[in-house]
Amino acid sequence: MYYLGIDIGGMSVKCGLVNQDGVILVRECIPTTIKDTEKFINELTALCFKTAAVGGVRWEDVASVGAAIPGTIHEGYIPYSNNLKWEDFDFGNTLSARLNKPVFCGNDANLACLAEQIFGAGKGIPDVTLVTLGTGVGTGIVVDSKMLLGNRSAGAEGGHTVIRKGGRKCNCGRRGCWETYASASALLKDVKAAVRKNPGSILAAEAKSGISGKTVFSAVRKGCPVAGKVLNNYIGYISEGLINLVAILRPKCLLIGGGVSAQTELLIAPLEDIVNKYAYGGTRNPHVDVKCACFGNDAGIVGAACVAMQGIQ
Amino acid sequence: MYYLGIDIGGMSVKCGLVNQDGVILVRECIPTTIKDTEKFINELTALCFKTAAVGGVRWEDVASVGAAIPGTIHEGYIPYSNNLKWEDFDFGNTLSARLNKPVFCGNDANLACLAEQIFGAGKGIPDVTLVTLGTGVGTGIVVDSKMLLGNRSAGAEGGHTVIRKGGRKCNCGRRGCWETYASASALLKDVKAAVRKNPGSILAAEAKSGISGKTVFSAVRKGCPVAGKVLNNYIGYISEGLINLVAILRPKCLLIGGGVSAQTELLIAPLEDIVNKYAYGGTRNPHVDVKCACFGNDAGIVGAACVAMQGIQ
Repeated sequence: MYYLGIDIGGMSVKCGLVNQDGVILVRECIPTTIKDTEKFINELTALCFKTAAVGGVRWEDVASVGAAIPGTIHEGYIPYSNNLKWEDFDFGNTLSARLNKPVFCGNDANLACLAEQIFGAGKGIPDVTLVTLGTGVGTGIVVDSKMLLGNRSAGAEGGHTVIRKGGRKCNCGRRGCWETYASASALLKDVKAAVRKNPGSILAAEAKSGISGKTVFSAVRKGCPVAGKVLNNYIGYISEGLINLVAILRPKCLLIGGGVSAQTELLIAPLEDIVNKYAYGGTRNPHVDVKCACFGNDAGIVGAACVAMQGIQ
Repeated sequence: MYYLGIDIGGMSVKCGLVNQDGVILVRECIPTTIKDTEKFINELTALCFKTAAVGGVRWEDVASVGAAIPGTIHEGYIPYSNNLKWEDFDFGNTLSARLNKPVFCGNDANLACLAEQIFGAGKGIPDVTLVTLGTGVGTGIVVDSKMLLGNRSAGAEGGHTVIRKGGRKCNCGRRGCWETYASASALLKDVKAAVRKNPGSILAAEAKSGISGKTVFSAVRKGCPVAGKVLNNYIGYISEGLINLVAILRPKCLLIGGGVSAQTELLIAPLEDIVNKYAYGGTRNPHVDVKCACFGNDAGIVGAACVAMQGIQ
C-alpha cells in the first residue's frame, strides 16, 4: 500500500507519495492561495490525485492520507492558524470527503518528530524529542512511541517555555519565550547586532555578501572572536531550553532540526556536551543522545505519511 | 483482590492494605533504620505481612505489592537515592522474593499523580500533571492515562526546570531551579526574610508563635501588606513553572499537592487564573483546570497500590 503525505506551509503545499518504508517516491508541489478554504481544498484535492497519478499508483492503492499543518490541529479540525489565517476549519473531514480516503492530521513539528522516531534519526527509540530551530522553535515529542499532544492537541509547544522572565518580546504576545533566543531568526538578529557593533570583524566581512544561518559558523571557522561569542551565547540559549525539556521528558534521543542543525561540530557536539553535563542529575542520569534530525525539508511529508500509516489523529 | 501500597520516606515507612477501589482499609507504619538494606528488607517484609494480617486478609488474597520511593527507581532498581542513602539496590526483586508476590515500584511523585488520575482529583482524565509543593517541588505526569517516566525513569523532574538563569542555589548543585522558588521550604525562607525586614508587620506578629506554611496565609487574611507581597511573589514563582509545564504537556488537569495546596482561595484560585491567562495561547487554548490534589499524605500508599494494580513498572 501507499500513503500520501501532505505538508502545508505558508507559501506552498507539498504532497508526497510514500511507501510503507517511509520512502518518498514522488513529490508534487503547488503555490497556494490559502485564505479561501474552498478554493484551497479544490487545489489540494487535485494535487493529491496528481501525485498518485505521477507515481503510477492507482487511487485504490492509496491506503490513507496524512497532513502536516503549522499550528494547532485536533482530530482534523483547525480552531485557528496564525500562519495560514484560517479559523474554524474542519479540514480533515472536508478533505476526506473529497478524496474518499481516511485523512489523518497533525501539527508539523509533532509529525516531524514522529517521522524521525519511525524512520529517521530516532528510529525505534521509544522516547524522542525533536527541536526544530527555524523562524521559531518547534518541538515534537514522542513518548513511548506515541506523539504527546496534550489536551485538544495544544501541547508540545516547547518553543514557548519561558527562559527569561520579562525577556525578549515573542510573537505569541508574551516575553522571554525560548524561541526568541534559540530560533534561527534570533541567531540572525544577534549576528546583525554583532556586525553593527564590530564593523571591522571577520564576521562583518563575512556578512557583506548577506547574512544567513551559515554566516556565524563560517566566521568562527576563520577564527573570528566576535562570531565565537555570538555562537557561544546562542549555544547557551539553546541549551537552556533543552535542559528544561530533558528535566521533564528525559528522552533517550534529542534531535535538532532546521538549517543550522547541519553544523555538527560547531553546534550539535557542544549541545550534547552541555546537555549531558548540566541537565538535572548530570552524568549520573542516563545519557541523552543529541543528534541532527535527518529528514530536513521532507519531515512534513514523511511525518504526514506516518500518521496516515498509524491511523491516529 | 487486595493490594499492598508501601510508601517509603526518609523517616518512616507506611504500608496500606488497599482494595480495588483505591480505598485504604488498614495503615501500618514503622520508623526505619534505613541505611542497612538487608535489615530494612527484613523490617519491610514483616510490615507487609502484619498489614495484611491486621486487615484480616489472607496472604493469597493479596494480588501484588507496590512501592513508592523518593528518587529514581527503574524497574524496581534504585541506582542511587539522595534521601535514603541507598546505591545500586535491587529493591523490587529483593522484596518480591521475600514476599513471594509481584512487586511494582515507582517514584513517589509519579505514583501520587497516578493515584489522583485513577481515583482522585483527576479521576478518569487522560492527561494530568501533579505538582507537589513540599521540601522540594515534585512533579508527576500522566499522559494518555500512563505515567510519563522518560528514559530509565529519569524524567518528570519538573521541579528542576530552571526559571532563573544563575538564580538561587539548588540542592541538585545547579542554580535557578523552580523548586528553589516554588517549594514550601522556599516560601518559609521568604517569610522569614520578610519578618526580619518588617518586624512591626502583622506577618511578624503571626510568626511569633513559629513559622509554618500557614503563617503567610493567616497574615494575608488579617490584611497584612507585607504578607500580601510575599504571597504574590510566591504565586508568581509557582505560576512560572506551571506555565512552562503547560506549554509542553498541556494537561487538562493540573493538580497541586503539599500542605499549602489546602489554601483554595488564596493559592489555587489565583494560580488557575494566572495559568489560563498567561500560558501559551492564553484563553484561545483549552482551559487548564487547576485543583488541589486530594490524597494528601495517603498519595504514596494509594499510588503504590495503583501501580500494583496496573502491574507496570
